Amino acid sequence: MLTEKAAPTTSRQIGRGQKVRSAVLAATLAQLGEDGYAALTVDNVAQRAGVNKTTVYRRWKDRESLVVDAITDRIAVDVPMPDTGSIHSDLGRLARSLVATLTSATGQAIIGTMLVGAAHVPEIAEIRRRFFADRISRTEPVIRRAVQRGELPEDTDPAEFVKTLIAPIYLRLLVTAEPLDEAVADRAARSAIAAARAGALSGPRL
Amino acid sequence: MLTEKAAPTTSRQIGRGQKVRSAVLAATLAQLGEDGYAALTVDNVAQRAGVNKTTVYRRWKDRESLVVDAITDRIAVDVPMPDTGSIHSDLGRLARSLVATLTSATGQAIIGTMLVGAAHVPEIAEIRRRFFADRISRTEPVIRRAVQRGELPEDTDPAEFVKTLIAPIYLRLLVTAEPLDEAVADRAARSAIAAARAGALSGPRL
Repeated sequence: MLTEKAAPTTSRQIGRGQKVRSAVLAATLAQLGEDGYAALTVDNVAQRAGVNKTTVYRRWKDRESLVVDAITDRIAVDVPMPDTGSIHSDLGRLARSLVATLTSATGQAIIGTMLVGAAHVPEIAEIRRRFFADRISRTEPVIRRAVQRGELPEDTDPAEFVKTLIAPIYLRLLVTAEPLDEAVADRAARSAIAAARAGALSGPRL
Repeated sequence: MLTEKAAPTTSRQIGRGQKVRSAVLAATLAQLGEDGYAALTVDNVAQRAGVNKTTVYRRWKDRESLVVDAITDRIAVDVPMPDTGSIHSDLGRLARSLVATLTSATGQAIIGTMLVGAAHVPEIAEIRRRFFADRISRTEPVIRRAVQRGELPEDTDPAEFVKTLIAPIYLRLLVTAEPLDEAVADRAARSAIAAARAGALSGPRL
């Protein structure tokens, strides 16, 4: 929907650039879902996206940065941060949205790549670390707003809070292999709020 | 310390039987730790334990039951159930003992086998399911006693409680790859108690 007339060539170039980027990142996720990280090459991805290998290398220095970008990009789209004015509904939405992501085909591919792959491929451990740091920091404003509204204690550590929220969901996915549903999400949200209110999630710096 | 004199041969046989069992299960864990589940064979284990392959097959029908027994046995030894008379100290001990197990060499071998192996070897998923069901049910009496003492709400679901306790510990081990220490254990214990007291961990049957 670029209607600007002053620089039509540039706008078209930007549009084309965004299309290439989207196509390459989508191809990366599809490739991960099908064959896993170990088998992923820039060649595979370029072929699948219908672009030249050099086009990929102009934007991403190696397959690791490609995978990080694909995952980060997808998660940014999948998990919009709620701002309903209440910690209960914000957290319920966050937790349900995590459950929806983790039970989707793409979510399974991402998790498979990051968690199982990390044991065998050292680069993946770093991707995972960056992914979760990013995921947690994106969620922190939700917690800060709740603190500002007086819904959570002032010394609540946002990162600890987010980890407490997501922990029971990942436990079921990775450890006990139980089904994930909205009841699991809602219980996780209520538990995290209760833990914070009891002072169990206060930060190291008061 | 079998001092009974009436049936010396039988006692010696029992003693010998227990020694063989211990040696085979210890060899199984050592083998898992070194080469992982995929490479484990009854032959390897028998050789390492210094017993005949037929001796192993007399007690265990296949390598899957051997691995399940080795893991279950080890965990029973590693995690004695506390009964201090207070939910705070019981849970603190449980959580610290889980952290100690998960950071030990044997614990790493077990977790590596059960969680990473589960993605590639179907039998492992079932071992994992049985292991965690066993682990959770062993812990339930601790929760029941706390309910009887009036420290937790009557409708607290023991399995949900245990999962809430262990979830932040496994999250750090498997997802965020952060170090595990006693502070993590203590925070997990306080969070689970707070969640239960707020009614977030009540069972489906009231």
